[in-house]
Amino acid sequence: SNTYSFVSDYHAGLHPRLLDANTRADVGHTPAYGGDIYTEKAIKAFCDLFNRTVEVFFVFNGTGANIVSLLSGISSFNSIICTDTAHINVDECGAPEKLIGAKVIAVKNEFGKLTVEAARKQLHGFGFCHHSQPGFLSITQSTELGTVYTKTEIDALAELAHSFGMYLHVDGARIANAVASSGLPIDKMLENVDVLSFGGTKNGMMLGEAVVVLNPKIGKMLDYQRKQSMQLCSKMRFVSAQFIEYLSDGLWLELAAHSNEMAKVLASKLSKHFELTQKVEANEVFAIVPEKICKKLWERYCFYVWDEAISEVRFVCSFDTTLEDIDSFMELVEKSVE
Amino acid sequence: SNTYSFVSDYHAGLHPRLLDANTRADVGHTPAYGGDIYTEKAIKAFCDLFNRTVEVFFVFNGTGANIVSLLSGISSFNSIICTDTAHINVDECGAPEKLIGAKVIAVKNEFGKLTVEAARKQLHGFGFCHHSQPGFLSITQSTELGTVYTKTEIDALAELAHSFGMYLHVDGARIANAVASSGLPIDKMLENVDVLSFGGTKNGMMLGEAVVVLNPKIGKMLDYQRKQSMQLCSKMRFVSAQFIEYLSDGLWLELAAHSNEMAKVLASKLSKHFELTQKVEANEVFAIVPEKICKKLWERYCFYVWDEAISEVRFVCSFDTTLEDIDSFMELVEKSVE
Amino acid sequence: SNTYSFVSDYHAGLHPRLLDANTRADVGHTPAYGGDIYTEKAIKAFCDLFNRTVEVFFVFNGTGANIVSLLSGISSFNSIICTDTAHINVDECGAPEKLIGAKVIAVKNEFGKLTVEAARKQLHGFGFCHHSQPGFLSITQSTELGTVYTKTEIDALAELAHSFGMYLHVDGARIANAVASSGLPIDKMLENVDVLSFGGTKNGMMLGEAVVVLNPKIGKMLDYQRKQSMQLCSKMRFVSAQFIEYLSDGLWLELAAHSNEMAKVLASKLSKHFELTQKVEANEVFAIVPEKICKKLWERYCFYVWDEAISEVRFVCSFDTTLEDIDSFMELVEKSVE
Amino acid sequence: SNTYSFVSDYHAGLHPRLLDANTRADVGHTPAYGGDIYTEKAIKAFCDLFNRTVEVFFVFNGTGANIVSLLSGISSFNSIICTDTAHINVDECGAPEKLIGAKVIAVKNEFGKLTVEAARKQLHGFGFCHHSQPGFLSITQSTELGTVYTKTEIDALAELAHSFGMYLHVDGARIANAVASSGLPIDKMLENVDVLSFGGTKNGMMLGEAVVVLNPKIGKMLDYQRKQSMQLCSKMRFVSAQFIEYLSDGLWLELAAHSNEMAKVLASKLSKHFELTQKVEANEVFAIVPEKICKKLWERYCFYVWDEAISEVRFVCSFDTTLEDIDSFMELVEKSVE
Repeated sequence: SNTYSFVSDYHAGLHPRLLDANTRADVGHTPAYGGDIYTEKAIKAFCDLFNRTVEVFFVFNGTGANIVSLLSGISSFNSIICTDTAHINVDECGAPEKLIGAKVIAVKNEFGKLTVEAARKQLHGFGFCHHSQPGFLSITQSTELGTVYTKTEIDALAELAHSFGMYLHVDGARIANAVASSGLPIDKMLENVDVLSFGGTKNGMMLGEAVVVLNPKIGKMLDYQRKQSMQLCSKMRFVSAQFIEYLSDGLWLELAAHSNEMAKVLASKLSKHFELTQKVEANEVFAIVPEKICKKLWERYCFYVWDEAISEVRFVCSFDTTLEDIDSFMELVEKSVE
Repeated sequence: SNTYSFVSDYHAGLHPRLLDANTRADVGHTPAYGGDIYTEKAIKAFCDLFNRTVEVFFVFNGTGANIVSLLSGISSFNSIICTDTAHINVDECGAPEKLIGAKVIAVKNEFGKLTVEAARKQLHGFGFCHHSQPGFLSITQSTELGTVYTKTEIDALAELAHSFGMYLHVDGARIANAVASSGLPIDKMLENVDVLSFGGTKNGMMLGEAVVVLNPKIGKMLDYQRKQSMQLCSKMRFVSAQFIEYLSDGLWLELAAHSNEMAKVLASKLSKHFELTQKVEANEVFAIVPEKICKKLWERYCFYVWDEAISEVRFVCSFDTTLEDIDSFMELVEKSVE
Repeated sequence: SNTYSFVSDYHAGLHPRLLDANTRADVGHTPAYGGDIYTEKAIKAFCDLFNRTVEVFFVFNGTGANIVSLLSGISSFNSIICTDTAHINVDECGAPEKLIGAKVIAVKNEFGKLTVEAARKQLHGFGFCHHSQPGFLSITQSTELGTVYTKTEIDALAELAHSFGMYLHVDGARIANAVASSGLPIDKMLENVDVLSFGGTKNGMMLGEAVVVLNPKIGKMLDYQRKQSMQLCSKMRFVSAQFIEYLSDGLWLELAAHSNEMAKVLASKLSKHFELTQKVEANEVFAIVPEKICKKLWERYCFYVWDEAISEVRFVCSFDTTLEDIDSFMELVEKSVE
Repeated sequence: SNTYSFVSDYHAGLHPRLLDANTRADVGHTPAYGGDIYTEKAIKAFCDLFNRTVEVFFVFNGTGANIVSLLSGISSFNSIICTDTAHINVDECGAPEKLIGAKVIAVKNEFGKLTVEAARKQLHGFGFCHHSQPGFLSITQSTELGTVYTKTEIDALAELAHSFGMYLHVDGARIANAVASSGLPIDKMLENVDVLSFGGTKNGMMLGEAVVVLNPKIGKMLDYQRKQSMQLCSKMRFVSAQFIEYLSDGLWLELAAHSNEMAKVLASKLSKHFELTQKVEANEVFAIVPEKICKKLWERYCFYVWDEAISEVRFVCSFDTTLEDIDSFMELVEKSVE
């Protein structure tokens, strides 16, 4: 269709440099399933990124990354504590429950975040066999509400988890946006995290996510668990080649910084007409836009109603969003609000 | 490395026309998760292929295609009957057991095939609650041993399955090779099949398989089951765009016919030196090659030992295998056998 | 130990009439797995109870009854909506998640009950494949807080469920207490319910629960699902013989009426010293008892701290609780509060 | 019905001493879920039996015992190797596949036994992520064909398992019959076994089996796994009280020795008319009995056709089978064969 989409950063395509990387990788025969040199290089790039040896498992998509990540440290009798807005809670059609067998405990988010207070209330029943044993705290960075955890917040959650023998998982489908936003190096930001779903698809890749095991004590069996989870890519060089390019010369941060910037611009302009409901710290803007106006905008633009009850809508900027896109959109907005 | 691979058709890359299709699809914004026009067209192409409306669910990989296919018709208290060599039995790390919860019953293959006789022996215990209820016969076409079921054989298995209220699944990771080999149109060959894993990756695609539901009475919930199985691609246009190209102008059959032809040539040449152990009906050649000779060949070529006990090895030809590749290989073979 | 227990109605033993029934059933050989005449009679007794043909599946325990009940109507991509206090949510170590694969969505209870308002908020995302499809509303009757749903409340929840194509499950581990409390016949009380976990163990049986399928359209495969769930008893006559006796001459209601009455007496006496936190409609009493006093009581009596934060404790009366038991207990209470 | 059953030792009732133990345990209140003194004593009785500290988990039934036992040492990406006749392979409706997620690999039995040779053939693919990693060898003692493994045979299988980092499980639904038959103390017979399903129900208990963890390095999480598997009994004292009595004064062996003896007598008499197809080492007799004769016998006796193709039938003797029972049966046999 000829509409422009603010629905999701999944609506954008593949960044030209990543497409080019795939084209260059399409030469001759290579071993399958990650035995190729592209995958070797891509894993090395992750180790460089974290300044130490980390175990990396490439997977197909975000749900796959989260499930394989969580399989690294828990069993079916454990529970995973996350926010009510967490992707693993509301957008994976019960994959965590079915594929891990574990209980997902959703607690009320605060601006998209899991707080130490909310999480701590779920940390009981240890050793009581009737109770799913708390195993993981799982947070999304940047959050589903476009906010970004500070390092202090992450460290506090990690400390809480570790003090109970639990682990901290980061769903980093938009980790690039969080890192670009914070200005902190990723290894610093996540230094106390146990396992990370490192996203690529939402930030310009065709497909591909990486499970990065940061705690060397867990995830020893992920090779089998990834395969059994149907997340092992045969022609893996094409995922790996994208990751090599994505991580080189800071492309991943450049793309994320751009979509973050576009969100800031959009937010600033929208705020003249509508109430914003969340801080804009990454590439998402939440605002109260009356349905009457939405209907006019939907004629040419796609975006998602977040909370129908209060007319809250979500705009997501992508690596390819331009100032012109925003200007055109704002023209229609201004016409619509008159 | 500088070795040439006969290990698997997964070792080849992406066919230029398919790469080009992806490049062309990389324009602007499209809805995610299959709401795009590429996916609409790709599904239409499958309907055209089968000359009727079929339900199509694109997935990431072969294991994913098989699991989602099998979820279309059975529950955890059912069993799936296949050969001992079936991919679902030996190459999926127990994904069918974990993800369907069902029992996989492997029976001895005959030249890679499931026979009516072998299958029928497992069809008992219906209505007896202690016994996993037989739910699917699952066959691989072309088989893991490079042979191709005739339409008569498929129809007999379908009749057997249906006579017990069961379904017939075809793992078609190499269905193109089977169709190219048989000369039969795919809709004719599979007219009594219930659900098909239609492969793309082994025949020149970057990645992408299609679950094709041929029996309209089953698979009503696959939309949810695919998602929960982590097999729903967000930027699906890139899988779909490949499938559109793959199915247009008979490209899929052209590529398969080529790799089949290369296997025939290779088989003919190898047979002068080694005993072939299977008929060469698709793109695989099985031969008895003494380990001493293998060691020499492995210096420059990769291929897989199939059965160490009898020095049986497997050579797989790909869409990009050339006569020159085979000639070079045979030169080394001839030197090695001297 | 020489302490008396108000911890749970599981702490009581086996009622003499039920013990006697087992003794009488211990004669000669009978078919296993429910093929015996005791089971036939017990199932007939359930049909009589409900004044129509119902499907009945005896299982070992309450968790088993709930899981098998819920398997009757949903798949792994569904969700089950219940209260935060529901047994399936907090006391089954994640059995629903592991064994059904489904999502359990816990909403805030109101006096132990699921309200139509709270449930309705979760009824969205139908047809959206990313969202676990709401499949069951599950309520506990009598509730975990000792309250009893009215028929009007149950009917409203049933209507809500059915209007969305969902089902209503009743966890009736203490259904006898609810029926005895309400005065309504069970078939009337549950006339719009789809499937019931009918409890026996908490009301004087040694062990044994019954899955009663009230909606004839569901549960067609429970025979296999019970077996695969490890809930099929081999010497089933001993469970069935208890159920026959339990349901004859209204024994089940007599025992429940007694424990309800004891709870009322206890509540009335406790209320002179402590604040009661829930209405006493079944056999449980909740009260605020300061920890200092609890410590004195615990020297001779067991009972459970329900909410440490507010010193809320729970007392459960059993079929064998006597007025003397309560008087002795109250003596100590009175000494302790001085 | 008025027929006598040789179908299964499940068709017999509860031994009077065990019934009496239950009656004696039915006094006052005790903690639930195994916190009672009966369970403490029963566990001690198992430790005494094995002359060392063992972990014991009481469960409801044989399938439950096997599943919980196997959960002690493997994950879903593992496989379990057993015979084609194994209870876990043919009589549990796929419970191992669903509840463990693991692959069950059935190999041809030799007189009901798993041989080192047959098992070893399945021990490959270690470290290869496409292959379910062999995790358990599982044998049944006494076997489903009424034979008994020697200690030498068990030790050889244990050594094989351990040499690959795997474990050996014994399905001891009829372990009493095996121990009584062999004359070896159980701790000696099973000294190299890792985990045991210790049966009670088939040898005179009402219900109740015990998972006995013999290898202290495994099974650390069974408390949770038993609960999540719905195998935790609330009024556990009634299972435990039976086990206390069962293990005291050698009752368990006395009952098994009796049913073994009855099988020997029956076998000796039957052998005058029919070919026996298995050695009679425990309480089961297999013989070729023409269908015409079966039909006459079935008028007054129940027994199971094992292999219809060859008219092989199975007779199981129970703790309560008497010489008179056998004599009466043989009278009818003799009349029938005339």
